Amino acid sequence: MTPDEATEETLCPIARTLNVACDRGTLLIMRELSMGNHRFDEIQAQTGLSPTLLSARLKRLEESGLIERRIYSSKPRRYEYHATEKGLDLDAILVMLRAWGMKWTPYDDGQGPAISITDRETGKQVDQDTSISASFRFSDYDGTLSAEFANERALRRSRFQQDRRAKSS
Amino acid sequence: MTPDEATEETLCPIARTLNVACDRGTLLIMRELSMGNHRFDEIQAQTGLSPTLLSARLKRLEESGLIERRIYSSKPRRYEYHATEKGLDLDAILVMLRAWGMKWTPYDDGQGPAISITDRETGKQVDQDTSISASFRFSDYDGTLSAEFANERALRRSRFQQDRRAKSS
Repeated sequence: MTPDEATEETLCPIARTLNVACDRGTLLIMRELSMGNHRFDEIQAQTGLSPTLLSARLKRLEESGLIERRIYSSKPRRYEYHATEKGLDLDAILVMLRAWGMKWTPYDDGQGPAISITDRETGKQVDQDTSISASFRFSDYDGTLSAEFANERALRRSRFQQDRRAKSS
Repeated sequence: MTPDEATEETLCPIARTLNVACDRGTLLIMRELSMGNHRFDEIQAQTGLSPTLLSARLKRLEESGLIERRIYSSKPRRYEYHATEKGLDLDAILVMLRAWGMKWTPYDDGQGPAISITDRETGKQVDQDTSISASFRFSDYDGTLSAEFANERALRRSRFQQDRRAKSS
């Protein structure tokens, strides 16, 4: 969607943002970039998007100025995907999605947060009571994955690699 | 989607929230409820969703415990839709979507915010610098629509009524 398409219908800034940036796939991609995961295959493994859909979403995100490609290998040519300032400003939305999920989706008893997010300066954890502004950035915080969530991600990665091997053999 | 379906795949609270609450239609409905718009036709007029899609979304929102129906007319039986505590907790996400849209989608020069949101106690406007917690509620603030946005909404409403008259005649 071009910026024009995003804004032509309405003055409502909520609707305008939803036009550009709010489908499940897009926000999962932005989550991965915020977690330091920048390569196509790794993003695919962790979001579960098909290669076709992931390509389409990345293209649209680039056209909307939310991400940029950076070459990390010239032969063969390979790109990493990084959030721009505009994309990083979605962190405030992601952290509020996180807060809601921690409060309202049922976790098992004693299950800690999937990622503990700690303010590097104050040592305080980001939780339901933490106040943040629209310029919140995950990169200002330390993130620590719980053993269970690290395991979930490792499992996703190894399943993805198995699937790929199975397809290419 | 049932709570089980929402959580079975992942520990990530962002993904779990996206499973329940984050498609464009759903968030536009929640925006309408937060703006005090509680009736089917009015919600339809302002979100532009088809009756079929709006019914499906409202049903899912009710099943997920985000909204509840309240009878406001018994003959014929008619319902209003109201956000529950769980649904009202999406306000923090909506206000961050708003902040992003105000910053990153191009408004014409001199165009003020579609809705000015003012803290009832401090008189301060909610803008890019305002810090909020996950329990932010629009209902704690005064909202004032700009003339242009009020006009856009009135236009949407009259178009909707015209379309309906055209269809029933």
